[in-house]
Amino acid sequence: MAKKNFPLSDVYRLLEPGPVVMVTTAAKGRPNIMTMSWHTMLDFEPPIVGCVISNRNYSFDILKATRECVFNIPTLELAKKVVACGNTSGRKIDKFKTFHLTPADATCVKAPLIDECYANLECKVVDGKMVAKYNFFILEVLKAWIDPSKKKDPRTIHHRGNGAFMVAGETIKLPSKMK
Amino acid sequence: MAKKNFPLSDVYRLLEPGPVVMVTTAAKGRPNIMTMSWHTMLDFEPPIVGCVISNRNYSFDILKATRECVFNIPTLELAKKVVACGNTSGRKIDKFKTFHLTPADATCVKAPLIDECYANLECKVVDGKMVAKYNFFILEVLKAWIDPSKKKDPRTIHHRGNGAFMVAGETIKLPSKMK
Repeated sequence: MAKKNFPLSDVYRLLEPGPVVMVTTAAKGRPNIMTMSWHTMLDFEPPIVGCVISNRNYSFDILKATRECVFNIPTLELAKKVVACGNTSGRKIDKFKTFHLTPADATCVKAPLIDECYANLECKVVDGKMVAKYNFFILEVLKAWIDPSKKKDPRTIHHRGNGAFMVAGETIKLPSKMK
Repeated sequence: MAKKNFPLSDVYRLLEPGPVVMVTTAAKGRPNIMTMSWHTMLDFEPPIVGCVISNRNYSFDILKATRECVFNIPTLELAKKVVACGNTSGRKIDKFKTFHLTPADATCVKAPLIDECYANLECKVVDGKMVAKYNFFILEVLKAWIDPSKKKDPRTIHHRGNGAFMVAGETIKLPSKMK
């Protein structure tokens, strides 16, 4: 998928609506994927993001050690693979191979991009003070990529619990002073 | 609107999809409303939530002083009022009166519920350590309310920046082990 550079100042527009994210990490050249929805923007520019990654997840130890990951944002076509990644552990399988997802090289981090996702955000941990108490990592987005064909109305999926997902519907525009 | 008690263990199902929230506070009996999208779940039960409220907002000082607020979740019919609340400051106007919204008494906090919102979460600040650096408040949800008629497929709105909102579409169900 031919991705283009996406301005860092607009990263909040991708995450603020609350999509499910596939977080990729890499330990010693071995990539992993986990499904995650507990994230929030913390600042606009540079874009700072907070997210919860449970210490029961394989990705927790990798992220703590490498301090690098990629937020990959999937759309509806990938829903089954998103759930499959959430139902399995990288301790036991290579999720890229098992679920036929394509790793692509990132620019700023060693963790791979998931090529099939419409947007990818390369991140590094900038503050780990909340990890011990809340499993909450604070990350800076260093580089962002987007598939220009899906930029307008991405059919992102939003977890409603127990495998129920709300699929993004229409976009409306209202006169707003809010950023 | 006749609301029912909503189980605290299911609160994550309301917030995890990333809806815009109207945060109500009250200072000396004077209520206020602000529009907010930068929130994340931090734990399931008791439900712990993190959110960013900028120190430029009037609500910041009230929340810091009273340590209480309500997260009110609006649906599409309220979109214009959501934006109106985001475009104005409670320093200058009473938003309940100006935008014809109905305050209702909460059970556990002094901040009011917005009756027109389909769900309301009464919250108290449980950790303020991240406020100075990130304007990030950590709250426990003490009590949750829902309009049972809108529980199934709420048409929540999700901010995409600059007054563009994605409206929640259909819900799909996939076999998942994820909570």
